[in-house]
Amino acid sequence: MNGADALISTFVANEVTACFANPGTSEMQFVAALDRNPQMRPVLCLFEGVATGAADGYGRMADRPACTLLHLGPGYGNGVANLHNARRAFTPIVNVVGDHATYHRQYDAPLNSDIKTLVTPNSLWAKSADSPDAVAGLAAEAVAASMTAPCGPVSLILPADSAWLETTTEPAIAQKPVRPAPKGEQVEAAARALKDAKKPIILIGGQACRAEGLKEAARLQAAGVTVYADTFVSRQPRGAGAFAPRRMQYFGEAALAELEGVDLMIYAGTTQPVAFFAYPDRPSVLVPEGAATLSLADRAEDAVAGLAALADALGAPKEGPVQPLKLPDAAPSGKLSPQLCGVTVARHLPEGAVVCDDSVTSGGGIAVPSMTARPHEVLALTGGAIGAGLPLAIGAAVACPDRKVVSLNGDGAAMYTVQSLWTMAREDLDVCAVVFANNSYRILNIEMMRTGSGQAGPQASKLLELGDPAIDWVSLAKGLGLPSVRCSTAEEFEKAFAGAMANRGPMFIEAVI
Amino acid sequence: MNGADALISTFVANEVTACFANPGTSEMQFVAALDRNPQMRPVLCLFEGVATGAADGYGRMADRPACTLLHLGPGYGNGVANLHNARRAFTPIVNVVGDHATYHRQYDAPLNSDIKTLVTPNSLWAKSADSPDAVAGLAAEAVAASMTAPCGPVSLILPADSAWLETTTEPAIAQKPVRPAPKGEQVEAAARALKDAKKPIILIGGQACRAEGLKEAARLQAAGVTVYADTFVSRQPRGAGAFAPRRMQYFGEAALAELEGVDLMIYAGTTQPVAFFAYPDRPSVLVPEGAATLSLADRAEDAVAGLAALADALGAPKEGPVQPLKLPDAAPSGKLSPQLCGVTVARHLPEGAVVCDDSVTSGGGIAVPSMTARPHEVLALTGGAIGAGLPLAIGAAVACPDRKVVSLNGDGAAMYTVQSLWTMAREDLDVCAVVFANNSYRILNIEMMRTGSGQAGPQASKLLELGDPAIDWVSLAKGLGLPSVRCSTAEEFEKAFAGAMANRGPMFIEAVI
Repeated sequence: MNGADALISTFVANEVTACFANPGTSEMQFVAALDRNPQMRPVLCLFEGVATGAADGYGRMADRPACTLLHLGPGYGNGVANLHNARRAFTPIVNVVGDHATYHRQYDAPLNSDIKTLVTPNSLWAKSADSPDAVAGLAAEAVAASMTAPCGPVSLILPADSAWLETTTEPAIAQKPVRPAPKGEQVEAAARALKDAKKPIILIGGQACRAEGLKEAARLQAAGVTVYADTFVSRQPRGAGAFAPRRMQYFGEAALAELEGVDLMIYAGTTQPVAFFAYPDRPSVLVPEGAATLSLADRAEDAVAGLAALADALGAPKEGPVQPLKLPDAAPSGKLSPQLCGVTVARHLPEGAVVCDDSVTSGGGIAVPSMTARPHEVLALTGGAIGAGLPLAIGAAVACPDRKVVSLNGDGAAMYTVQSLWTMAREDLDVCAVVFANNSYRILNIEMMRTGSGQAGPQASKLLELGDPAIDWVSLAKGLGLPSVRCSTAEEFEKAFAGAMANRGPMFIEAVI
Repeated sequence: MNGADALISTFVANEVTACFANPGTSEMQFVAALDRNPQMRPVLCLFEGVATGAADGYGRMADRPACTLLHLGPGYGNGVANLHNARRAFTPIVNVVGDHATYHRQYDAPLNSDIKTLVTPNSLWAKSADSPDAVAGLAAEAVAASMTAPCGPVSLILPADSAWLETTTEPAIAQKPVRPAPKGEQVEAAARALKDAKKPIILIGGQACRAEGLKEAARLQAAGVTVYADTFVSRQPRGAGAFAPRRMQYFGEAALAELEGVDLMIYAGTTQPVAFFAYPDRPSVLVPEGAATLSLADRAEDAVAGLAALADALGAPKEGPVQPLKLPDAAPSGKLSPQLCGVTVARHLPEGAVVCDDSVTSGGGIAVPSMTARPHEVLALTGGAIGAGLPLAIGAAVACPDRKVVSLNGDGAAMYTVQSLWTMAREDLDVCAVVFANNSYRILNIEMMRTGSGQAGPQASKLLELGDPAIDWVSLAKGLGLPSVRCSTAEEFEKAFAGAMANRGPMFIEAVI
């Protein structure tokens, strides 16, 4: 048994059983050890941003980490953007970053770099296993660190010699971290403040937006407290049977207009809401002037327990409101739009579907009719780094092979991690990947005006428009091994999407909007 | 005039006139300012790894930096791998990393991250312009820092408010850094050591491998000193009229076997050679036992001046050996192989062509016959992070619109930055992009054996083989807007490559090997 075996057997002993990988020479021992440890499922990704995004999707759905296998600093670097999103989703991930043999580092070979510094901004925990005997213990520590609330990505650096040298260490077992319930006085303070407030709201996020949190939040809604959810949430049930909190609006001034008159904001599983971007003369903090604020449960605390205790303290009913099942009767027709796509999606989304949403300006059109669709869950883009929607779907499908996964993407976003389509084909994942092709970074045309930059002229437009040449998405997806179809009308989209929902396996749809 | 105008006008005043970009909301002022500063050429890349790799290719060919425009930490993160390669190529690049407005940073909005730490490993210089009045001065400082030997990427962080607020600062002019010549005693010591040595070699790299460096190195060869070049060189002339130094072999034990008996190694423009990777029981340092070593000129010094002075001190002839022009007579035939591709490339490569090489295991087949092809230059993968070959070609073609650019890529490597093909089409670049499709990370099958990991079993093979499903490269390239052709025979490749060389504009060739 070598260090690589110790690593994989420790992972497996801690239920880390999926590895999204793009290895190189320094990771060959890990690769070889996979044949001796078949409980670990290796999933090849043709680019590390796919691997890290897939690990994010997996962790959100499995509630335990996958590992990634990345090739030194540059391999990790390619994964940074989706690790940023995962950090913002509080997703447990254990990154295994291969490194040169310990004694080889000093020679500064071409692939050498300062891995420790590179991983810092997106790692809750980062250590290097500098001997084979250290591997198992650090691997267990890494798993525990990634699952310690608020949870997130961690980085275990694995020098090549720590992997290839022999060790006799047993698999180490990670401590199971407990998420502490908020203190009684936090709950009492919140209950008192709510009784005194004229127009209170409670803002939920993270763990509080999961199924159990939504149930408790619905009780508060029933007791007269308006519930808002963060704009972008890691994982949230939607559709029939789920409570549908209001959503904090994306643009700050719209959010504040909606919150006018609110005199109390309570946070559960989240914190003070702020604008996604700053703009000249627009607000950064989205708390109405004069409103009191109070934390019921921060991201490291058990927000579900906090919400339940608060609901009990207020004498809220045992059950709150949930969405009815109400599917659009008629198939849509005419020239395709995000709104018409949304009608079709709502009609055909099967129960238990997982929707991975990176659809930027097209997303609203889907979200609205899906509010009363069959019960499903939504994984949103939490960190703002586009290119998450396709990789998230890979991870969700690996974690939940019995659930249909739908990936909704803007064209600009999908192009970031287009390599994902190959892994969907390779692993025969039950994913329907949709790309909304508007041939533009549409959001930037809107943002251009909002930042006071004015109308884009000919030079600026070169950086905002994708239509010259127009990307042939069907040709791309076929090239990567996926059955695919282009839809320009609502009828075509209805037929394609219904077919994808009815049949198992990967499918690609270009929605021309 | 706002901070963004101050930035672009300072860049233009310092001959930084190309911007490889993928902007977001925080960069909208920069984008808008492009319309007011038309001397700056914006080139949209659909992924930041393409932008940074293109800036690398541009800087290698133009000998002055391009700028990139990247969207906060995640945008920079996507560019890390090719910035690693650029750092290892000593290429001047000025990264402009947009950030939240200074006052907005404290609120930790979703796209917030520790940019300063993230840029550290791959930046020779990194500062944030925290007021509009600071922008011009820091931009000039950034340009100077990137061009100060040994040269490399730098990072200027640009908060959104520093871009949108007014300023009256004039464009700042960067100091032109001078590369100091090595001291007289270094040259004298090298001359003395050479006279005493029985089997001396000189190892050249970086600046010493440019046209002028090769000329002086050839004089040393004529004087009886065997000249070796680093395995991977940023930019080096090849073909007729160029001196062809020997190349340090990739595998350490082969390199040392070739160097057996060498008793003196002198370094010019480079440093001690080391193995690309460590392996169990194989050497890390590629200096023969007992050999003396000596630095004629380090990477920050003027190696060309050092070589010239040393050649003079040895009384070397004014001219050294150069390669003859010797093109393969006959077009190759039969089933395609890298070697047959090489014959065709050597036959048709036009004078002045720039070859961007990320072809991994297929590369040797091309290099050998090209040694006597028409004069051309080669840009190699300096940092080992695959995915450089396509972006380098974009940058080289933007920098040198009158030269044919040929991009040679392994299939695994090309998939990393496949988005590059779209920018080639968009900008109508004179690039012929070739992908060698062996449906495998072939190098890893070799490395698997070398690391002592044994033969890949079924699990390990899942991470090494790309053939299931096989990527249809022609479909991919067409989807991204490029005319493209698949070649399975040498006759087909000969026809396609000859056509691409004879006609201006982008062209894609899948070479099935």
